[in-house]
Amino acid sequence: MMQNIKLTLCYDGTRYSGWQKQGNTANTIQGKLEAAIGQITGEQVEIHGSGRTDAGVHALAQVANVKLRGRIAPAQLMERLNGILPEDIAVTGAEEVDERFHARLSAVRKTYQYRLYIGNAKPVFDRRQVTVPVELSAAERARLDVEAMREAAGYLLGVHDFTSFCGNPSFKKSAVRRIDSLEISENGAGDELVLRITGDGFLQNMVRIITGTLIEVGKGAIKPEEMKAVLAAKDRKKAGPMAPAKGLALVEVEYTLP
Amino acid sequence: MMQNIKLTLCYDGTRYSGWQKQGNTANTIQGKLEAAIGQITGEQVEIHGSGRTDAGVHALAQVANVKLRGRIAPAQLMERLNGILPEDIAVTGAEEVDERFHARLSAVRKTYQYRLYIGNAKPVFDRRQVTVPVELSAAERARLDVEAMREAAGYLLGVHDFTSFCGNPSFKKSAVRRIDSLEISENGAGDELVLRITGDGFLQNMVRIITGTLIEVGKGAIKPEEMKAVLAAKDRKKAGPMAPAKGLALVEVEYTLP
Repeated sequence: MMQNIKLTLCYDGTRYSGWQKQGNTANTIQGKLEAAIGQITGEQVEIHGSGRTDAGVHALAQVANVKLRGRIAPAQLMERLNGILPEDIAVTGAEEVDERFHARLSAVRKTYQYRLYIGNAKPVFDRRQVTVPVELSAAERARLDVEAMREAAGYLLGVHDFTSFCGNPSFKKSAVRRIDSLEISENGAGDELVLRITGDGFLQNMVRIITGTLIEVGKGAIKPEEMKAVLAAKDRKKAGPMAPAKGLALVEVEYTLP
Repeated sequence: MMQNIKLTLCYDGTRYSGWQKQGNTANTIQGKLEAAIGQITGEQVEIHGSGRTDAGVHALAQVANVKLRGRIAPAQLMERLNGILPEDIAVTGAEEVDERFHARLSAVRKTYQYRLYIGNAKPVFDRRQVTVPVELSAAERARLDVEAMREAAGYLLGVHDFTSFCGNPSFKKSAVRRIDSLEISENGAGDELVLRITGDGFLQNMVRIITGTLIEVGKGAIKPEEMKAVLAAKDRKKAGPMAPAKGLALVEVEYTLP
């Protein structure tokens, strides 16, 4: 029986072409991990992530699993991986799990956050993790109508067809997803809005398109109640623009016991 | 009468050769600011910082002042500077002050922080602002004796000759300084130690040498009560090594009213 190890990963996506391996040369998180595990175990492995993250998107707690022929203590694998992996990828947890556990297929919920800078200076230290909405002046950023954004977010809760919020025009499968919560909070310093969204799964670019649409609501360009029509249209052109990758991070993946 | 403007600055020192201008070509914070102010006002200005920060050292709130022949609203100067300056330098405050105000000469106290990563993974997002003591294994980092470090810090409080903690061997002026507080706290996640030190002024590399010495105490290589002898020796070789620049940030400069 192979050893199945669940890894929890934190990464700064700035330098990478996203999670998923692409050919032999691309600079991806999955590629870096498979190479490092190969170096430690001598095995050619395939690592399964809970899902892809796009180029430039971060993870505070991505989950992946890998099956090994040989045995290694999870804590030892974690320590050695942290020694080999570049400084912008860290393994923050490693545990042996049931052979049936699969990071993508066993996932039941995911949470993403999107960080928007609304202060009147610049986010110096967090500049690679926070989006400054460049189409807005400092005064417009400070005037974003957060209550209207929250009202608009309310229309997205529950089970809907999210075709209008899907970035892949040739997507053919069901676009029905369930959003359990979408909270918009200000950070302590009052210079940042954080959108936190939890659901059973997300379409390609869905969180970034929801964020871009809510910014339009905050500016007053879309009224909160228009979200109903945007959903009903099942037309990407009815939603707002896609917010940039760098403000987005995968923050949690939830599993039921297998 | 010239207009005297006090600026509060936040910068990520990673890419810079420190605060102070060095010839025409060096990449310094002071140089970037003087060029940007020149571009806005058409005046060739000299900006005075509260003190130098070394290459790679950060500032959450460095203070500087600049005198202008013409007049400009401080808020407007701040907004235009933030538009021109690179994304790793921000102006977070601007106000007109008494002509006698001088950012260095009027300063009465400064506070620095030094961030040390002691977790068992890696500080992915803060990797340019936090030092991982590389000479220690993850297990040794977790075992640092913080109580011994606090006890040792106590010996540094008050007025002392800090020659043993001065990085400039040819320093000829008085090395007597006053330290008002030196607190060592753990962050919420328990994976970081933050040293916070306030005093009337600091010698070259003094905070970094104090930090390096306190790490030696945390490891057990120096006993807390030996700090008395280290101070008394007035000999740089008796203190510990200098901690790296990137963990250090200037966090506050205090002034009395002129």
